[in-house]
Amino acid sequence: MLQSIEARTGAAVGTSWPESTPAEIDQAVAAAATVADTFAATSAAQRASLLRALALALEADGTALIALADLETGLGLPRLTGELARTTFQLRGFADVLDAGTIHAVLADDAAVAGAPPVGRPRLAKVRVPVGPVAMFSASNFPFAFSVLGGDTAAALAAGCPVVVKGHPAHPALSRQTAALAQRVVAEQSLPAGVFGFVQGAAIAVGVQLVQAPAVAAVAFTGSFKGGTALAKLASERPRPIPFYGELGSVNPLVVLPAAAEKSGAELAATLAGSIALGAGQFCTSPGVILAFKDAASDAFVAAFAQALQATQPHAMLSAAIRSTFDNGVARWRATDSLTPLVADDAAGAAMPRPFLAEVQAADFIANHALHEEVFGSAALVVRVVSVDEAIAVLRSIGGSLTATLWGAETESDATRSLVRAATQIAGRVLFAGVPTGVAVTQAQLHGGPFPASTQPFTTSVGYAAVDRFLRPVALQDAPAWLL
Amino acid sequence: MLQSIEARTGAAVGTSWPESTPAEIDQAVAAAATVADTFAATSAAQRASLLRALALALEADGTALIALADLETGLGLPRLTGELARTTFQLRGFADVLDAGTIHAVLADDAAVAGAPPVGRPRLAKVRVPVGPVAMFSASNFPFAFSVLGGDTAAALAAGCPVVVKGHPAHPALSRQTAALAQRVVAEQSLPAGVFGFVQGAAIAVGVQLVQAPAVAAVAFTGSFKGGTALAKLASERPRPIPFYGELGSVNPLVVLPAAAEKSGAELAATLAGSIALGAGQFCTSPGVILAFKDAASDAFVAAFAQALQATQPHAMLSAAIRSTFDNGVARWRATDSLTPLVADDAAGAAMPRPFLAEVQAADFIANHALHEEVFGSAALVVRVVSVDEAIAVLRSIGGSLTATLWGAETESDATRSLVRAATQIAGRVLFAGVPTGVAVTQAQLHGGPFPASTQPFTTSVGYAAVDRFLRPVALQDAPAWLL
Repeated sequence: MLQSIEARTGAAVGTSWPESTPAEIDQAVAAAATVADTFAATSAAQRASLLRALALALEADGTALIALADLETGLGLPRLTGELARTTFQLRGFADVLDAGTIHAVLADDAAVAGAPPVGRPRLAKVRVPVGPVAMFSASNFPFAFSVLGGDTAAALAAGCPVVVKGHPAHPALSRQTAALAQRVVAEQSLPAGVFGFVQGAAIAVGVQLVQAPAVAAVAFTGSFKGGTALAKLASERPRPIPFYGELGSVNPLVVLPAAAEKSGAELAATLAGSIALGAGQFCTSPGVILAFKDAASDAFVAAFAQALQATQPHAMLSAAIRSTFDNGVARWRATDSLTPLVADDAAGAAMPRPFLAEVQAADFIANHALHEEVFGSAALVVRVVSVDEAIAVLRSIGGSLTATLWGAETESDATRSLVRAATQIAGRVLFAGVPTGVAVTQAQLHGGPFPASTQPFTTSVGYAAVDRFLRPVALQDAPAWLL
Repeated sequence: MLQSIEARTGAAVGTSWPESTPAEIDQAVAAAATVADTFAATSAAQRASLLRALALALEADGTALIALADLETGLGLPRLTGELARTTFQLRGFADVLDAGTIHAVLADDAAVAGAPPVGRPRLAKVRVPVGPVAMFSASNFPFAFSVLGGDTAAALAAGCPVVVKGHPAHPALSRQTAALAQRVVAEQSLPAGVFGFVQGAAIAVGVQLVQAPAVAAVAFTGSFKGGTALAKLASERPRPIPFYGELGSVNPLVVLPAAAEKSGAELAATLAGSIALGAGQFCTSPGVILAFKDAASDAFVAAFAQALQATQPHAMLSAAIRSTFDNGVARWRATDSLTPLVADDAAGAAMPRPFLAEVQAADFIANHALHEEVFGSAALVVRVVSVDEAIAVLRSIGGSLTATLWGAETESDATRSLVRAATQIAGRVLFAGVPTGVAVTQAQLHGGPFPASTQPFTTSVGYAAVDRFLRPVALQDAPAWLL
């Protein structure tokens, strides 16, 4: 059964309702499969109209949806108002991409060349075709932007793929209400209902059935490492494997080079503490590993950073399950001998979590694999390094990450070049200023990165290139005029 | 032990030599890893120079290499001369791509916008970075174009990734000689030896070690379904999974619409027979399933096609193992009750194989999964259909294929549109004229397609977009001027 829970109190709100049954999930996938060819054949203008109508409907119901989201997630009205604005911006942004014509464009068109190969060739034109029904798994931590009508859904619909959305059980009433809104808009746009399907359930079986459904052509997932890797395995073990676009978490290392600590250490310390405390650290791009050197300016930076983090306000977490995982992660760090706590109030029994920060030497960090795993929430490690080479070794030990941030790399040198190369080798986005929380929706955005940040590191789940995940290139050889 | 075998006689030539040891494989990977950053930092001009020097060296040694290839594969001098020309064309083509600057280009550059998100944003520029060492598995059936200095190697080197090539044991002396040539050219170009590594071995363990080596960042593979799926599984089960670009075979359905049979059936029958007989059908794009309708013109087409195939010259196969697999596949088809043989000379004991062709009704074909599997060699099935809808059902039952060919789709209609949509859903390349054998090396080429044609259906292993497999996009946020 599904039950709406008030995040701040843990109290049940309203009556519970049943999960989607296997038969209902089958029906949702079958409906998507039935309309896949029709929807693939819609014009860019029709799909742009759908996306804009969805944005408008979200805005029309905005006040009620935001209130419900706040009740179920505790994320607060300012954050949720901003997130809804981001979600409608994103829907309209994909509509603009459709208007620009790039989705249906001929990507490359090589004229025929007379004569024998290899110089002689037929005409070849590369186009892209929608892959078919996409199963979309909503995230807990973004009830709008990575949920029912979030970026994955917007990208799949823009590409011409029907979606079957699995709502996240941490905000079930909001998910249901948003899905009803989407289904109403699809009907108003005179599109078949199969274009937008919706299922709900907390049981693992719901997701397993979606990933294994033969008619599902691709999966988009934002969530935990454990759930994501299990579903990715199922996707690859199908008789006909399908792409599994999973975003599974990230530690987001941030390197504070001595030049930055020297120049503006106090200001950066406050910025960083704010980024880690924001929304109780429940962002996939929250910085979890801070690399600091050992000079006087770096020492001062670390002290200021710890002080600023200590002073941040507590914030409820999304659900009791997420809070419990956070508490367990912090307890594991507390029990690690090589860590020296810097911010470590005990809040295990309190309603709100407290941030946790500890310091560790580079060699100890590198040697302890458990420290390379994300603790989802306001928890971070300061890793002390003595050289750029040691910083590179720390980055390499972390492996894949959504982001890596380098503060103080404004001046070119061999050392800086090596550090940038190492950062680009492990991350999908490399920042040279600011903090990684806040992911702009643009064409150049890359929200992905080597495993485990993404199971498909060449793709992005944020920004307009997200449509590329659902459009497979096909070369048309000697295509008739009516087709191109 | 490795032994050069004369393909036409099965006789051993020269002395045998040992497979690469685990220590040697480790050394090759370690050498590639050591130079990965240096090679990634080379200029486009340096890598273009390397590729052109490799092409020139292949031409300089061409006569000897072609003779050795002919001895080990039996493919014949005209075909091998053409294949070497294709290989050098391809190397120079990637050099031209490097000259054009697209590999190091900024793919998207979004200027900063002042203000609050979602409109406000930092500057984001998307670039691409070489993934690191690539393990490359050579194919048996293209001793030049898909082997040591074939398309995968050219693409990886163009991208700035060192390669560790595994030579194919079916042409071991040619592989060793080509690798020696490559290593000499790398040295002459003043590049570190680790840029091009080479290992050899017929044992499965050699490939397993390469795929599991922690420093290997991606795998390119052309070969069998069985070997490819086993290695792909290992790649996905690594602690840090890596992309496995596998091309695993394809049945390449070809639809002869009544209009085409009516207009030029006799000519098409001869063309098709030639495509299937070419090189004993040892092409991954050889047509294996021919869909024909049931009108008089289609009956005449099938009769002419069978007659033309019957009349083709026999041709030695690449190796005793490949011949044995072909004989087993044909024997399986002979024993299938629903098949009516059309061309079925018994050549099980003869030195050269004979082509095999049988006819089957659409419903029987769809119901029998074993018939959807490729029989590598000159063997094909004629599937009789009564309607475009039935043709679509046959295409869907086949699933993924490198190519699908539609003859007679020159006129637009709902039926033709549906057929084209079905073809693009299952294939990486859709042809409207000609035969799928012969894969042009161009920008628009797509040699891939849904599983099992490719394990990464969004990518291509032929044509200049093949570099995209080894260049991972990264978003640079607020990058300093020196970096862009």
